[in-house]
This record gives sequence, structure tokens and C-alpha cells, in this order.
Amino acid sequence: MEESAAVSVTHRIIIDCDPGHDDMAAILLAAWHPSIQLEAITTVCGNAPLSHTTNNALRIVDAFGLNVPVYAGAEAPLLHRYAFPAEFHGPSGLDSAGEDLPPASSAAQRQHAVEAIIERVEAAPGEITLVVIGPMTNLALALALRPSLAQTIKQVVFMGGSATEGNVTAAAEFNIWADAEAARMVFRSGVKLVMFGLNATHQTLMRRQDVAAIRAARAGSNPVADIMDFYCGTYYNFAGADKPGAPMHDPCAIAWLIDPTIFELVERPGEVLVGADGGYGQTLIDMRPQDAAHDTRIKNLAVAVKADAQRFAALVTQALSWAAGRMTSTR
Amino acid sequence: MEESAAVSVTHRIIIDCDPGHDDMAAILLAAWHPSIQLEAITTVCGNAPLSHTTNNALRIVDAFGLNVPVYAGAEAPLLHRYAFPAEFHGPSGLDSAGEDLPPASSAAQRQHAVEAIIERVEAAPGEITLVVIGPMTNLALALALRPSLAQTIKQVVFMGGSATEGNVTAAAEFNIWADAEAARMVFRSGVKLVMFGLNATHQTLMRRQDVAAIRAARAGSNPVADIMDFYCGTYYNFAGADKPGAPMHDPCAIAWLIDPTIFELVERPGEVLVGADGGYGQTLIDMRPQDAAHDTRIKNLAVAVKADAQRFAALVTQALSWAAGRMTSTR
Amino acid sequence: MEESAAVSVTHRIIIDCDPGHDDMAAILLAAWHPSIQLEAITTVCGNAPLSHTTNNALRIVDAFGLNVPVYAGAEAPLLHRYAFPAEFHGPSGLDSAGEDLPPASSAAQRQHAVEAIIERVEAAPGEITLVVIGPMTNLALALALRPSLAQTIKQVVFMGGSATEGNVTAAAEFNIWADAEAARMVFRSGVKLVMFGLNATHQTLMRRQDVAAIRAARAGSNPVADIMDFYCGTYYNFAGADKPGAPMHDPCAIAWLIDPTIFELVERPGEVLVGADGGYGQTLIDMRPQDAAHDTRIKNLAVAVKADAQRFAALVTQALSWAAGRMTSTR
Amino acid sequence: MEESAAVSVTHRIIIDCDPGHDDMAAILLAAWHPSIQLEAITTVCGNAPLSHTTNNALRIVDAFGLNVPVYAGAEAPLLHRYAFPAEFHGPSGLDSAGEDLPPASSAAQRQHAVEAIIERVEAAPGEITLVVIGPMTNLALALALRPSLAQTIKQVVFMGGSATEGNVTAAAEFNIWADAEAARMVFRSGVKLVMFGLNATHQTLMRRQDVAAIRAARAGSNPVADIMDFYCGTYYNFAGADKPGAPMHDPCAIAWLIDPTIFELVERPGEVLVGADGGYGQTLIDMRPQDAAHDTRIKNLAVAVKADAQRFAALVTQALSWAAGRMTSTR
Repeated sequence: MEESAAVSVTHRIIIDCDPGHDDMAAILLAAWHPSIQLEAITTVCGNAPLSHTTNNALRIVDAFGLNVPVYAGAEAPLLHRYAFPAEFHGPSGLDSAGEDLPPASSAAQRQHAVEAIIERVEAAPGEITLVVIGPMTNLALALALRPSLAQTIKQVVFMGGSATEGNVTAAAEFNIWADAEAARMVFRSGVKLVMFGLNATHQTLMRRQDVAAIRAARAGSNPVADIMDFYCGTYYNFAGADKPGAPMHDPCAIAWLIDPTIFELVERPGEVLVGADGGYGQTLIDMRPQDAAHDTRIKNLAVAVKADAQRFAALVTQALSWAAGRMTSTR
Repeated sequence: MEESAAVSVTHRIIIDCDPGHDDMAAILLAAWHPSIQLEAITTVCGNAPLSHTTNNALRIVDAFGLNVPVYAGAEAPLLHRYAFPAEFHGPSGLDSAGEDLPPASSAAQRQHAVEAIIERVEAAPGEITLVVIGPMTNLALALALRPSLAQTIKQVVFMGGSATEGNVTAAAEFNIWADAEAARMVFRSGVKLVMFGLNATHQTLMRRQDVAAIRAARAGSNPVADIMDFYCGTYYNFAGADKPGAPMHDPCAIAWLIDPTIFELVERPGEVLVGADGGYGQTLIDMRPQDAAHDTRIKNLAVAVKADAQRFAALVTQALSWAAGRMTSTR
Repeated sequence: MEESAAVSVTHRIIIDCDPGHDDMAAILLAAWHPSIQLEAITTVCGNAPLSHTTNNALRIVDAFGLNVPVYAGAEAPLLHRYAFPAEFHGPSGLDSAGEDLPPASSAAQRQHAVEAIIERVEAAPGEITLVVIGPMTNLALALALRPSLAQTIKQVVFMGGSATEGNVTAAAEFNIWADAEAARMVFRSGVKLVMFGLNATHQTLMRRQDVAAIRAARAGSNPVADIMDFYCGTYYNFAGADKPGAPMHDPCAIAWLIDPTIFELVERPGEVLVGADGGYGQTLIDMRPQDAAHDTRIKNLAVAVKADAQRFAALVTQALSWAAGRMTSTR
Repeated sequence: MEESAAVSVTHRIIIDCDPGHDDMAAILLAAWHPSIQLEAITTVCGNAPLSHTTNNALRIVDAFGLNVPVYAGAEAPLLHRYAFPAEFHGPSGLDSAGEDLPPASSAAQRQHAVEAIIERVEAAPGEITLVVIGPMTNLALALALRPSLAQTIKQVVFMGGSATEGNVTAAAEFNIWADAEAARMVFRSGVKLVMFGLNATHQTLMRRQDVAAIRAARAGSNPVADIMDFYCGTYYNFAGADKPGAPMHDPCAIAWLIDPTIFELVERPGEVLVGADGGYGQTLIDMRPQDAAHDTRIKNLAVAVKADAQRFAALVTQALSWAAGRMTSTR
């Protein structure tokens, strides 16, 4: 990127994810920007089984030469069981409309993701930002094993939940719904939380012109563009072909680290519903305006409420174009 | 009103309420406008105990010479028990910042509100609109006794719930929260439902200039203006004195009957949460946009989503000014 | 019966039921014994749809010349919806292994069961025992309309729930499970409650020799014995043909009124679970022993815990034999 | 013990506990009997904070020279928060009616209890019995990190829950209630489970004569007898001084390993309720009898239903007498 020369690392991060198309975009955005130092990728059961999400993480790391260790985490949510949403990400969890990423050549680390998170955070107290863009199972387990992580993690920036409507149900967004008990544990842990929910991520689109720009960044085959085409296609299929683009959920968390001015955040109390009466997995964000003089609520969340769609799209498109160009061989 | 000569009755209604300051405004709006024929008022436990809400309804009917029978209904919600919100409506349920309405001179009918609703609806199948601006206990009981009312009631227009944030809790609006099981019964009954929730009613304000106009409508003492002053005062006390006005929840239902162009409505599926995990009383409205071709959801609600605040305020101010002037003696 | 000459009426009762095989046995036991004055039968949706249970009640009244008015009540539970358990009572709700009762010649009263309960109880405050042997929907609605019934009903003797295991689920007995919200309303109403749950009724059997005695009571066709054969047969089919008899649930409530020494009762706190996590419809009876000096629990239930199976069986067999003999013509 | 010469080790166990008076009895029973090889003690937040239960475990190990490593585990339940039941175990979690155990001289291992469980089980697949006599937090976390433990743990023998009434609530026994979500995870994990719930442990008493025998086993001060006196005293205070003894919950799990003929077990389906409607923490055991030919239920539990109180008391008394004698110095 043009302005990169003068940018020094400002965020040491671990990405906890279930790639996933928008997970890939988030990883590549983090890998691309010089202010981000991506120290590890941890995987979790989410969009697809753990074996798939781990394999997809390795394929991403290998295909783009990222040199980041990958740790496999929880095989299943704490209590919730569900059918994987293959209609959105394909059976592999990272299907392509054209060419796939090459098979992984590297392997996951032997250490469990939860242990890796604990060890890395404790080795650099107050230094590590955890970017959670899948279900919160790994983080909940790490906090249950080491409650003090709530103080030693610098912050948790996550994509999940919503201050308005859900997606997988009327109430709930997928990542939180997939393991609502884990999310409730995290919300109640006292860790610093920055939330990018559907209310914000629905403002951030991968538009048709963005995919075109990414495709133009590489002559010949272009798996990055093909994978984005698959992602946008399943969204258009669901929401209507007249839509100008598909929401780029997961990269929001990284984009905010790179440039917090892209988003507007408000401090709010938040809880996760776990009852079986229709609200399971809802992030109940207390959006009631209150006169500051009367407001004694404990605000455990910074919630993104507005996004600058143009600047966000520019950032993601630059990163994915860089990534498309970086692949030396695709077969 | 000026344009009234040519307007014929288009809505025969029963108002089911718990007056209540905004309930009074709704009753007076209905009494004032020639397109509305207010045939009965039924009362319910809600903002205040049933004895208070019934007495307040009688005081309103007597003070303004409305000639409408009042029927007392349910003494308590089906299962929920709560402390009455005296901080918003005062201990009487209809406190005034100055002069009160005179004591009631008439008495409630002997018939129970639920029986009155059943009898009146069955006497005019398809003719009666039920305007529910308190908890839904009476209507739920009527539907449980006569499930066929779901077809014979013309429509239920209600103030309650929210498609966004709540008021009594982060999730829930007071009327629905006060008897969520009753609301769930109504939502599932199949009756035609038109919802004015907080998401819409927070757009409709009684402004300072509106109260001034109402006060100017009568020389000397003015209980209508005094009661509105109390209502706005408790709201400003809670939400901040910088607010331009206080939301006029209950009159929305009547205003829509008078002039549906004041509001924009969308058809949506809706359910009421009853679990004890933080979401009790939430109206879970499925606001997810879906491509019509894929949308198989059963939409049991017409939900108000936008209001024309200016035209709404003009309507309510006219009605309350008329009412203020109509009181022949206030002591 | 032998001792009947000197017995005067000691219980004026209404039976609220969903006949039902054991409901029929309860009705006949009440009709037979001189200490019971059966003043009305009210019906409810339960084992079968309301139209079936009402029709079955009428067939019983007509076939045995009982001269008792029948009132149809709630068409559906307040919130719960379920498939009727035709495997236990047959599609009609009162199937026979041989001959059926004749079709009903009389009709149900025009008044709703809930209104009849209210009117009859209020006409004789403190006099009427309500015997509830189906779901509690009617009683819950009556109490919601007239909370004062909790004081004016003499007592509610009901078959339902369990202090140990359930039947329709591991947690729940059918009558309570069918409308757990209604049962919760009744349990919390303050009305005097006497509970015959599965923990007691599983001690009271209709044995093979009892059915044989009932059959011997009438030459030729014998619908009473045939109906009991169907009931026992479905139970043996479910629980094993080696069982000595089938539990006679509903007649327990009547048998206790006739002779309270047949049962041992204890005072206990009780609540009904309504959550959707597996316990729906469970009657949570607090059976913890406590030193009286420390026990501050509010005991809203008298719970039957032991039954004298021999004396119970003798009573029911006498009543059903009387009934079998009383039918003048069966075709 | 007399018969010990010929007994070889048949059970390699880890005890996961929150000592705790009956926990101490369980540990000493295990330490005493030659058929049991106690390889580790893991501690959890339960009767008292983790720091107390860990310290108490160390005091027990030190006072009786047990030479067993102690590992501290979860500091808190996954989601549930509660006040510690100091009225039953005293503020320390192991209060004495006379002399206390000496302060601990050793320290807990550095490894986390959950990691120790995983490592030890995986080092001897199919060999290790886990005896859980506190909340199930540690085991739930271990299974979440390594789902394969469900197959590699030989069996989980636990004290917790009930097939009948609870203790901490009408529905729930303390150990399960303290972390019902964890218990639900364990119940659903597929691990082999043997349950000693209140329905069984209430049959196993530490009687007055048993404490006398333990006291007689040592001249002079006798902390073992003093600690049992405290335990029995708080129970008598709650349940009545006329009771013949106090239930010995936790040692049941060890007694069964030593001599399975002391108990009668049945195979049953079981689930843990987690809803907030009064049933939280209940172990819902499906005790419905069913004809084997129709029974398709998945039975995830072996549930103790009967105990031989005499033989149980003899075993525990022998073990605690041995322990009392073994303490070389108590000050």
C-alpha cells in the first residue's frame, strides 16, 4: 500500500476464526497492512467442521505465503448443535465460483488453540488483541481456564451479534448463535470487548466493482476473485440479485484496528440470550438512550453503529488485490 | 374540527386501556374525530392497579362528557407480577402537574370487560376494531374463551412492543412486558394485528409548543394541559431536559385509524419472548430483508416503522385543545 | 351400595374433564356414591379435541341417565399445542374394545364452561368442590376473570402432575403438560389444592379381576367392561403385559372425597415448570424433608403420596358394576 | 484392613473435588482401600472458593501422608454465580467442631487441573476412572478441549443430582446446580457415567455410633472425629436433631468402586435442566418404567437407586478410623 512505508506495527493480533470467505478477507487484510502483526491463527468449529476450517486456514496461509502458525481449537460448541450452513459457504466452508486455493502443504501446530491463546497472551500481558470472527468457543474456554486473561488480553475485537436484526434467526447472528453459552461467558468475563455486529457490517459491502478490481489485479486465473464471487453469489441468491454488494462481516474487525475512524462506536451494556423460546443467541444490546445523570448501567461493550462504506470498501479491495497478485502459482 | 362536516364514521372501536396519560390522549383523540365511533372503553391492570385505571377511565368519560360505557377487566396479568411504574404516571396512574380531573360521578358497568368485548364483537362480526393500548390480558382471555374472535374482530390496532429497543428493559416495552404470556397468545391467535411499537412511537412527540397550544385553548384552569405537563416532566426527568418532547405512544393507534398516511407500515412475522433469561416481554419482529421469491415467512403483523411527526402532533394537539375547551367546569 | 342408606351428601362438585376412559370411571364413581352431588360436568381440550370430549361427556350422561348438565369449555390450551394421544384413548377419546356407548341424545348447554364455573361457584360461595381431571385451562381462565374464586371455591381436587416421574415426558404428566401455563396460574392463585399425581395414581390399579367383576355385573353386552378393556389394553401394550393392572388416575380425586382414609396426604410447596429446556409441564413439588422449626416454606398443595390399593379398587369396581347394570339398553 | 492382603489394585482413579467434609471422607476411603490407587486430586470451586478447596485438599494430603499430587482447577462455574453454602461446611469449607487439620505444608502442582486430567487420561487410555464429587466444571472443560476423552476415560463415577428431590432447591442437588451448564455438557458427552444422587446418598448415613467409633480409634485429640461432628451437627441443625445420622454423599462413589454390591443401579436416560424457571440444575432422570420391547431410549447413565446402609457405614467407619489413627501429630 502506498502509505505503508511510514506505518509501524501498532497491533499484535491473533485471529480466531472459521474460514470462511469473509474470514479469508479478514486474514488477508491483516496480513497486508503494516500496522498489523498477525502472530497466530486459531480455528474453531463454525461455518464448517473444525477439520474444514483448520484446513482452509492452512490453505490461506500457504497460498499467500503468510508464515503464521495455525492452531486447531474446539471441535464443537459447548452445548449447541446445528447443521453447518453449507448454503452460504459451500460444503468445504470456502467454496469457489471458479478456482480453489491449492491444497494445504503445511500442517496445524500440535498445541491446542486454547492453550496457544493462553500462552501467547500470558507471554505478553496487555499486548495482544484477540480478533474473534467465528463462534466464541475458544475464547470462552481460555477464560474459563484462566479468568485472569480478562485483564491480560489487550482487547477482544469481534464480529458477531447485532444491535438490530439477526441473520440465522430473526433474533440472532450466526457466530453468537452457534455457541451462545460461550458468548455469554465472554460477555460476562470483564474482558474489553469491541463488537462489530450485523447492524454495522450490513453497511460494509463487497460490491460488484470491488470484485472486478480484485480480478483485474491478476492476469489469468484468480482464486481470490473466484472465492469472492462465490460468496457474493450465495448472498444475492438469498437476498436478491438487485443488491449492490454482499456484506463483508469479518474484515470489519481488522479494518477498525487499521483505521478506527471508519466506524462510529458507542459504549453499551450487552448480554447474550440463551433461552429456548426463540431468542437463543441474540445479543441483547441496551440501546435505550439515557440521560447521563441517571445512567448507572455497566457498559461492557463498545458497539459499532456506523461505517464509512466507501473507505471500508477501498481498504478491503486494496488488500484482496494485493493478495491476488501475490499468489505465485495457483495450480 | 373544521373538516368534520363531511366525514362519516369509518371505524367502530373499543379502546382497551390502562389510563394513563397517553391513554387519555388516545381516548380524547378518538372522541374528537368524527371518523371514529368510540363504543366502549375497557380497562386492565397495567400502568396502575385496575381500580385506578378504571377510575381514571371514568373520570375521563365524565369530565369530557363522552357518554361511553366503561367496563373493568383483568385485575392482574396471567402470570407476571411487577411493581407499578409510579415514577412515570404517578401513584394515581394519571397524576397532574396542576389540577386533576374531577372525581368520577359515574360507575363502571357490571359486565366484565372480557365479556363485553366478546358480546360486542359477536354482535357486529367484522365491524369492530379493538384498540389495545395497555397490556393484552383482556384480549388474550377473550380469545381463549372464544377463539373465533380471531376472525370476527375486524382488526386489533395496538400500542406495544418494539422492533428495536425496549423501555422497561433493554428488550421489552412496558405493555407487552407487563403480560408477555397474554401477548404471546394474541400474536399466535391469527387475529389481524397492527403494531405501533416504540420504534414508531418514539418518532411521535408531544412538544413544548404543543402543550402551550393546549393550554391556550382554555382560559383559567386547564387540567388537560396540567396532565400533559406531568407526563412530559417525568419523561424529561428520565431522558434529559434537552429533549424536544415526550413520546405520545398510545394516540398513535387512533391517529393511524384517522389518517393511515401518517405512518409507514411493513408486514412482518412477530413473536413474543417469555423466557426468564433477560428477553422476557420482547416482541421479536423478524426485520430481516428477504428476497420475495425466497420468503415463506408467515407475517402475522403490520408493523409501523415510520411516522410523520408534524402531522401527528397537529392532530393530537387539535384534539386535546378541543377537549380542554370542552370541560365546562373543572372544580 | 350397602352403607348408602345413612350417607348424606357431603360434597357438591363440578367435574372438569376430558373424557377419556378414567374420566368416565371418575364420573360414574361420583354419580354412584350418595355422598357426592355431581352438579355439572365441564369439558376441555385434552386427551382429544373439545368436540370429542364434550360428545363423550354427553354420551356418558345419557347412557347412564345421570341428569347432569354438560358445558363445553376451552377449545385449546393457552399456549401449548400438541398432537392428541390417540394411542392411549383411541381417536374418539373414548374407544372401546367391544361395544361403544350409544350416541349422545342430549346437547351441551349454551353457556361456556368457564362462565358456568364462575356462576355456580359464586351462587354458593365456599360450597363447591371443583374436581379437575383434565388440563387446567378452564379453571385458569375462571380465576383470571374472577380472582376472588380462589377464596369462593371450596377446594380444587385434581388429577395431574407428579411428585416423582412423569408419563408424557420424563418430567411431566399429561394433564399438566397439556397446558402448563394454565396449571402455573392455578398453582399460584391461592386456591386450596389437593393433588393426585402419578406418584399416587400409579398405586391405584384397575386389575384384571376388577374388569371381570364389572363384566359379570351385566348379562349380555357390556360397554363399561369393554371400554375398561380398551384402556387396560393400551396400557399393557405400552408398559408390558405382565403388569397386574392399569393405573386408574382420574377416579382417585373422587375416591378421596368419598373416603379420605384411602390416601395419605402431605402439605408441600409446588410450582409448575414452563421453560423449554426439557422440564415443560413438570410439577416441581418440594419434597425435601425439613425440621418444622426451620421450615418457612409456603405449602400451596396437599399432595397424595400413598394409596390403599385394595380399598380403592373395591370402590371403583363397585361403582362401575353398578353403572354396567344401570344401562337399560345398549343398542 | 483385614482382608487387604489379597486385594490388588483394580481402580486407578483421580478424585475431582471441593473438600468439603464428605469429600475428605471420600478421599480417605480411597486412600485406605488397597483396591484403589488414588493417582491425583483435582480441585474446583464448589462448597467454597477454589483457594479454600485447594488448601483443604492439601491439608488432607499432608495430614494423612497420602503422597498424592493436588491440582487446582476452575476458579468459577461456567456461567452460574452463587453464594458459598458456609452454613453447611463453615467458612473454610472444612470447619471442625473441635480441632482442625494442621495447615498445609505442601503446595499445589503448577499444572492446571484440567490439563492434568487430560494428560493423565491420555497417558493411560481406558485405565483411569474419574471420581467427580464436586461441580463438573473441570470435567466439562476437559471434554470441551478433548472430546475424545469421552472414549478414553474409563468411566466417570460422580456424586451429584438426584432421581427424586433436590437439596439446594426443590429440584436440584448442589454439585449439579452449582454448574448446571457444565453438567449438561458432561451428560451429553457420551462418557460412561455412574451417578450417585441424593436419592441414593440419603440412604447412606454417618450415624452417631459411627462417629463414636472413629473417635475411639485414637487416644487424645481427634480432628477426624471433630470434623465429622461439625458435619453431622450442621445437618441435624437443618433436618432435625432426631435424625439418626447425616448423609455421606461423596464417599458413595468410592464405596461403589470398592464393592459394587453395596448399591443397586439401573440404566436410565438423564438430562440436566438449565432454564431459569425454577428447575435450574435438576438432573431429569427418566425413571418411567417401560416394556423393554418398546423402549428405544438412549440410557446415558447408570443410576444408583438403593444402598446397603449397614455395609456402607461399616466401610466408611473403618476407613476414617484408620485415618484417625494414622495422624502422628495433630498440633
